[in-house]
Amino acid sequence: MLRQLKVFSGSSNPLLAGEICSHLGVESGAIRIKKFSNGNIKVKIEENVRNDDAYVIQSGSEPVNDNLVELLIMIDALKYASAGRITAVLPNYFYARSDKKDEPRISVTARLMTDLLQTAGADRILTMTLHSPQLMGFPRIPMDQLLATPYLLDHYRKKDLSNAVVAAPDVGSAKESRTFALALNLPMVILDKERLGDKERVVMRNLIGDTDGKDVLLVDDEVLSGGSMLEAAKMLKEHGAKRIWAGCTHGFFTNGALDRINESCIEEIVTTNTIPQQRNQNCKKLKVLSVARMFADAINAIHKGESIGALMDRLKK
Amino acid sequence: MLRQLKVFSGSSNPLLAGEICSHLGVESGAIRIKKFSNGNIKVKIEENVRNDDAYVIQSGSEPVNDNLVELLIMIDALKYASAGRITAVLPNYFYARSDKKDEPRISVTARLMTDLLQTAGADRILTMTLHSPQLMGFPRIPMDQLLATPYLLDHYRKKDLSNAVVAAPDVGSAKESRTFALALNLPMVILDKERLGDKERVVMRNLIGDTDGKDVLLVDDEVLSGGSMLEAAKMLKEHGAKRIWAGCTHGFFTNGALDRINESCIEEIVTTNTIPQQRNQNCKKLKVLSVARMFADAINAIHKGESIGALMDRLKK
Amino acid sequence: MLRQLKVFSGSSNPLLAGEICSHLGVESGAIRIKKFSNGNIKVKIEENVRNDDAYVIQSGSEPVNDNLVELLIMIDALKYASAGRITAVLPNYFYARSDKKDEPRISVTARLMTDLLQTAGADRILTMTLHSPQLMGFPRIPMDQLLATPYLLDHYRKKDLSNAVVAAPDVGSAKESRTFALALNLPMVILDKERLGDKERVVMRNLIGDTDGKDVLLVDDEVLSGGSMLEAAKMLKEHGAKRIWAGCTHGFFTNGALDRINESCIEEIVTTNTIPQQRNQNCKKLKVLSVARMFADAINAIHKGESIGALMDRLKK
Amino acid sequence: MLRQLKVFSGSSNPLLAGEICSHLGVESGAIRIKKFSNGNIKVKIEENVRNDDAYVIQSGSEPVNDNLVELLIMIDALKYASAGRITAVLPNYFYARSDKKDEPRISVTARLMTDLLQTAGADRILTMTLHSPQLMGFPRIPMDQLLATPYLLDHYRKKDLSNAVVAAPDVGSAKESRTFALALNLPMVILDKERLGDKERVVMRNLIGDTDGKDVLLVDDEVLSGGSMLEAAKMLKEHGAKRIWAGCTHGFFTNGALDRINESCIEEIVTTNTIPQQRNQNCKKLKVLSVARMFADAINAIHKGESIGALMDRLKK
Amino acid sequence: MLRQLKVFSGSSNPLLAGEICSHLGVESGAIRIKKFSNGNIKVKIEENVRNDDAYVIQSGSEPVNDNLVELLIMIDALKYASAGRITAVLPNYFYARSDKKDEPRISVTARLMTDLLQTAGADRILTMTLHSPQLMGFPRIPMDQLLATPYLLDHYRKKDLSNAVVAAPDVGSAKESRTFALALNLPMVILDKERLGDKERVVMRNLIGDTDGKDVLLVDDEVLSGGSMLEAAKMLKEHGAKRIWAGCTHGFFTNGALDRINESCIEEIVTTNTIPQQRNQNCKKLKVLSVARMFADAINAIHKGESIGALMDRLKK
Amino acid sequence: MLRQLKVFSGSSNPLLAGEICSHLGVESGAIRIKKFSNGNIKVKIEENVRNDDAYVIQSGSEPVNDNLVELLIMIDALKYASAGRITAVLPNYFYARSDKKDEPRISVTARLMTDLLQTAGADRILTMTLHSPQLMGFPRIPMDQLLATPYLLDHYRKKDLSNAVVAAPDVGSAKESRTFALALNLPMVILDKERLGDKERVVMRNLIGDTDGKDVLLVDDEVLSGGSMLEAAKMLKEHGAKRIWAGCTHGFFTNGALDRINESCIEEIVTTNTIPQQRNQNCKKLKVLSVARMFADAINAIHKGESIGALMDRLKK
Repeated sequence: MLRQLKVFSGSSNPLLAGEICSHLGVESGAIRIKKFSNGNIKVKIEENVRNDDAYVIQSGSEPVNDNLVELLIMIDALKYASAGRITAVLPNYFYARSDKKDEPRISVTARLMTDLLQTAGADRILTMTLHSPQLMGFPRIPMDQLLATPYLLDHYRKKDLSNAVVAAPDVGSAKESRTFALALNLPMVILDKERLGDKERVVMRNLIGDTDGKDVLLVDDEVLSGGSMLEAAKMLKEHGAKRIWAGCTHGFFTNGALDRINESCIEEIVTTNTIPQQRNQNCKKLKVLSVARMFADAINAIHKGESIGALMDRLKK
Repeated sequence: MLRQLKVFSGSSNPLLAGEICSHLGVESGAIRIKKFSNGNIKVKIEENVRNDDAYVIQSGSEPVNDNLVELLIMIDALKYASAGRITAVLPNYFYARSDKKDEPRISVTARLMTDLLQTAGADRILTMTLHSPQLMGFPRIPMDQLLATPYLLDHYRKKDLSNAVVAAPDVGSAKESRTFALALNLPMVILDKERLGDKERVVMRNLIGDTDGKDVLLVDDEVLSGGSMLEAAKMLKEHGAKRIWAGCTHGFFTNGALDRINESCIEEIVTTNTIPQQRNQNCKKLKVLSVARMFADAINAIHKGESIGALMDRLKK
Repeated sequence: MLRQLKVFSGSSNPLLAGEICSHLGVESGAIRIKKFSNGNIKVKIEENVRNDDAYVIQSGSEPVNDNLVELLIMIDALKYASAGRITAVLPNYFYARSDKKDEPRISVTARLMTDLLQTAGADRILTMTLHSPQLMGFPRIPMDQLLATPYLLDHYRKKDLSNAVVAAPDVGSAKESRTFALALNLPMVILDKERLGDKERVVMRNLIGDTDGKDVLLVDDEVLSGGSMLEAAKMLKEHGAKRIWAGCTHGFFTNGALDRINESCIEEIVTTNTIPQQRNQNCKKLKVLSVARMFADAINAIHKGESIGALMDRLKK
Repeated sequence: MLRQLKVFSGSSNPLLAGEICSHLGVESGAIRIKKFSNGNIKVKIEENVRNDDAYVIQSGSEPVNDNLVELLIMIDALKYASAGRITAVLPNYFYARSDKKDEPRISVTARLMTDLLQTAGADRILTMTLHSPQLMGFPRIPMDQLLATPYLLDHYRKKDLSNAVVAAPDVGSAKESRTFALALNLPMVILDKERLGDKERVVMRNLIGDTDGKDVLLVDDEVLSGGSMLEAAKMLKEHGAKRIWAGCTHGFFTNGALDRINESCIEEIVTTNTIPQQRNQNCKKLKVLSVARMFADAINAIHKGESIGALMDRLKK
Repeated sequence: MLRQLKVFSGSSNPLLAGEICSHLGVESGAIRIKKFSNGNIKVKIEENVRNDDAYVIQSGSEPVNDNLVELLIMIDALKYASAGRITAVLPNYFYARSDKKDEPRISVTARLMTDLLQTAGADRILTMTLHSPQLMGFPRIPMDQLLATPYLLDHYRKKDLSNAVVAAPDVGSAKESRTFALALNLPMVILDKERLGDKERVVMRNLIGDTDGKDVLLVDDEVLSGGSMLEAAKMLKEHGAKRIWAGCTHGFFTNGALDRINESCIEEIVTTNTIPQQRNQNCKKLKVLSVARMFADAINAIHKGESIGALMDRLKK
Repeated sequence: MLRQLKVFSGSSNPLLAGEICSHLGVESGAIRIKKFSNGNIKVKIEENVRNDDAYVIQSGSEPVNDNLVELLIMIDALKYASAGRITAVLPNYFYARSDKKDEPRISVTARLMTDLLQTAGADRILTMTLHSPQLMGFPRIPMDQLLATPYLLDHYRKKDLSNAVVAAPDVGSAKESRTFALALNLPMVILDKERLGDKERVVMRNLIGDTDGKDVLLVDDEVLSGGSMLEAAKMLKEHGAKRIWAGCTHGFFTNGALDRINESCIEEIVTTNTIPQQRNQNCKKLKVLSVARMFADAINAIHKGESIGALMDRLKK
């Protein structure tokens, strides 16, 4: 029943979408997105999509709420245009960090996002490196999670890791860091930080494990204003760390994060293009890895009904 | 089961919300809304709402998508905080103009909005002056529509209407204008305009009816950049109109609309505060009518289970 | 997954269904519909429909509620017989005029109809010329609206229109009439009528525009007892109109409407067969246009996943 | 939250509804039901029902589909008028006999009815004497089934039953008849009939048990054209039965059923007013028992949150 | 869209599943089912199933709740693994006897089972010989019911039936027994038993019809502890029956049922393998008929979109 | 609308349920639960519950699937018996550990459990100490999570903690352990274990932090066979730990866990009665804390619409 594979790009990350299309060997689907003077968005799909297998690429990057609403309208338009199946492709999941109710009377907004996607008409979700794997339990539709880990590991493997440790920037992300430690066969240390209220400011409480004279891989899933990472780097230095190589999958780099990283003891910050990085091109410490091929391969696998697990395994090697 | 009436205000129109609360004689509900550096919104309801009858006030004004997502998160937070009933109070409905599929492969976004509200957890909707009454058929939950008409009629009745006609700015809004003509016992004329693509620019085709030497009430449901209204005014003048009194319920006034109205042949523009009008305070031709009391009375009626129709009738007198 | 295209006809409009089948080159699907002595309907699908692409044709004509319930039972039977996809083909939408809540405590019955169709198991809806385009926002399933306009325009273009105007029978249908005026490049006039309560009786208030010495195309979406149209014709005559050519898409012609039209100043009444017209064959002023080909083409397009917009454009020429 | 008990009557059985209201000591709710000339029904609730506990009384009697659609529109109107809870009170359940799929590709229409009621907005169902108790498993909302049995038993107990047996008119209703046999402490016989196709004509195959010289209570849940009951009576007579007292809960009596019963060997036919019986007043063999009090008591119990089982037990005595 | 037919077997009835697979000529799908020490079940589908047409075979046999939860987890795993369509194949439906609300405040658990299956993600259900055909009205997804009757009839036709009658073990199953009587052209008798509370103990009240000197086919849909069947046999003997051949589709045979049957006047008990019968191999009176081919043929028909009714007809011959 | 608070206890943990009722000062609701010989469960609510506020207490303890199905049937029975609101009270959440998709093609069974509860008719969930807080995002109904932490902290505060550290038994539960470290103002160490396949056997890889000469609080959310905890204890001893005090909220203690703990270097194991502990009464190292009061207070708060957060805060002191 599903006819053609069609990829539509939202406004958030057109370069990544373009790369994905070019790996897939398809033209980006014809679409017109207009913003009226009162901020209302209008989407028109400009080609027939009946029974087609449609993929909509949109990142949870800024302006995040505009991107979200645009995505929902695109999906709604595709659904009523009788697309055969609609996959929301979210290189960075919207509101991924709001995945639990750790205070009374707040919204588990990552779950709300999932509900909204389903309401608009998404049949599947494809995303990358979630803050917590439990988020996979939110949707009532199939969801595939890609991991940027193979790209980051590839990058790290090119370094001299003979004297390195992996540092988890806080207790909560220890499990994620452990994946790197295991894959690279390195020891691990854990930083124990404290967030002040909702604020993005943190203080470091403690360092569990030994970093004296070590090169440190400091990996997190996402970096916003970088306060946490910079505090961690400072503490690692105080505990005798030599070089600090920072990394993350989702590099938001808000509030001048990269300027402060440039001026800090961090030697390198590596990220991917799940969040568009064009505006950061002249930051010399930043290295950007493109995840386009992995997304293209996954879209292809979904379209053909092949296993994505197999794809991930292939990429790991 | 429902205990207390509680009103929570989103960020879009705090002045109107404040007025409504003060008519109701209640404090605005305690809520904390925070925006992270990547644009993600966090909402925390800061008082117990279990079993309460909660009203969330948010306008579809700019930044419209931020306001929408904030509204959805507020409703979601209230729902999981066990509010007894949640009414979305939308002085201006979100995306109200996108209420039909007049081109292939577009989204009926006003209906999508309704779906999103229900998904987030709204139990009822209260709104004002919809572009088309059919929108009342979109939700699967009860919806009440207030009309700003009594306020506008009150305003017009203070004028000398002995030589006046009502003008519909286009054929589509003729039915709405007819309400004014009937209530004020005036003749009606209709302008026949043509919209160029999606653009907010229009050209006038024709004028049906007679305006020579007449004072004209030129009423529409909403004004964005005002292009349409200004073109209409020009054509009315060309057809011999004397004074032109413009009016609308929802005054977006984007792209310097009010500056252009100030410089035009329009003598007065009257609107309401469904869209916040503080920033337009020093526009001398603008008159703003507050709809706060009508909303307060309607919320009170809903809370007590009284008829809103009766309330509207009371206001009409 | 979808195998064969199958068309099933309800009891309401077998001639139109037969014509559609013959344009499609298919036999009408085998079905047995029985009415028990207490009015209960039993439907048996008499051929295998597993995974088939089924179309059920039923008009909202009289006896309207029997036709509706029969339609719902047919869809239910097809769904549990494992039809692959079920499209409700409604040449005349059920309860299309009840599309708004213009009084308190009434039902938006056109929306309820949509809900019932979805509950019974319809996957899509195909219909023609809705009273208001907003109805397209009611269903949560894809809906295609065909327009009878090309057929009516074809018919009018054969006339001498050198001295003609288009008349909207009331303000509410001005937008619809404007389509005809634009397509035929004619001026437009608008009648301003008043409905007395729920009654089908109307009085004319006013005529906006000039009809003196003109031939008038008086077009509406539907005609019931014709009271409104006859009043309009009378008023047009009083304002100097020469010939009056009436037309509508959905010709219910209840309560002897055609008899009164035959005796009136209306020269011709043209309609389509969305409502069956066999019983009206000997009304000499009535011209019936068959919409069967457009429905056949649309069904074919849906079955093959082709664009219907393209089809409409093709027909317009 | 629920405020007042309000009872609204559809068009099907106003006398029963009136009796119920008078037992409850309430006025029937103000409602206006209009039928347009094309058969479309319009319902207007003419009093405020916000938060009220509304009961809508409608029987599945003829014209059954008009009554059904009217019922659905009434419920929809009440729901959007913000009724607190809506109970569909169906003295005779719609399409109750279509409760199984005993042929391929037919609809289990009794289940479809349940779905339609829920879609329209019913929160509960109250009905009487279903053809099969499994129907109670169809709705996803609470459903209470009253039984007319106590009324019928009361009636039979006034007879001399010293020489009586209970006869089941077919194998399928043996279980129902057994209830009577048990309660009256009588033996039972079973007739084995065969239905010809969908037709309402039957032939008798066999009689299991002994009726020689016996008075026979021939009880069924419903009687349509009475063919089955008359055949049964004939066979019972052939097997030596003395007097035959027929009875049923739902007396449709279509196609001159009562005339034929009057002329037959059946001595008496007793039924209830779940189906309106006014038009049958001058049938001398017919006795009608009113079930109004049981419905009034049940509505009262539901409104107050009391057990209906207790009520049934009370009635049994 | 649906690619391969894949059959997965739960833990309940692997032999039947194996036979079905071998009739279909497919390998059983790779799956790993693990039970943790706290009884929690983990299911891992060990092959790609994207877009596949998956069938999960599980019987409602003991341990029934473990089997049920395992089934739900299997379906959930398949759904999120993007299986194209999931059919729950239930040779014995779970909780099939709890199909009505014959006491207040009990659960219609057979309907709850249907709801749970749909929630887990089943798209269709295939089952055999339900206790009541009304259960087909419970699901909102297509359901096919196979009947073991042809197998049982085949078996009985090999006997000398010249002097036989069919006995219904109680009034409720008279309709089922009638099918056998009709197909074998035999008379029928009915036993009237009484169940004591919820207990599985029964007492016989009466025997309707004549069994003196007859061979009796005593058929029921299921046998649990056999108490009811043994009581029936005893009563039949008391009424002069010669040989008693018992039979049922679903042979649970709990609490030593077969031991007691072995010692009873019942000459033979025939059943099928919808409930696994391996552990009963050395019961000399028991004959087991395999229903594997009928299930294999039905799965094949569903996969190819062929009619199952046709298949049943084919088997009847 | 909600009338009385009623508490119903399932079969899993009647002692805890009894304690809760006695704190609440209510009798346990009248209910009859029967198991048929084929394992099918029948539930009968034996008192009127119309409009009542019903709480069903059931733990995810063994036999877990029987307890689950019994719970679902209880909820279903309450729903159809018209309970006003149903809260599933789950001292130990069912399948709480299956909360993520860390392998392809497995079920996120904790989410499936949530779906099943909603399908059966639960309106709210009340549970204790989830393995991951993200599980709070699974349901579409309000869910309250209590924490056993205050009880455990109370217990630990009675010890001499002057030389103590908190140990996380693996990286994944580091965040949970951190709560204890923070509350008791103690340092933290983290063990890095590896699970072998699905097996409950683990090997220890590493110990991050310093335990030499320390007393260790080894806390986890649940203990099954205790393999992980015993391995951790061994490793802690190897790294110089003095005394080891183990603790967990949910003590399954399967496969002789307590025997092995009794024989190990662990000095004490403290748990709560979320899992019934009667059978472990004579294990001398085991201390059981009752969580009944916290559940009683929470149920009371929910019933009265009071904040549970406030309750938790009160308990913390």
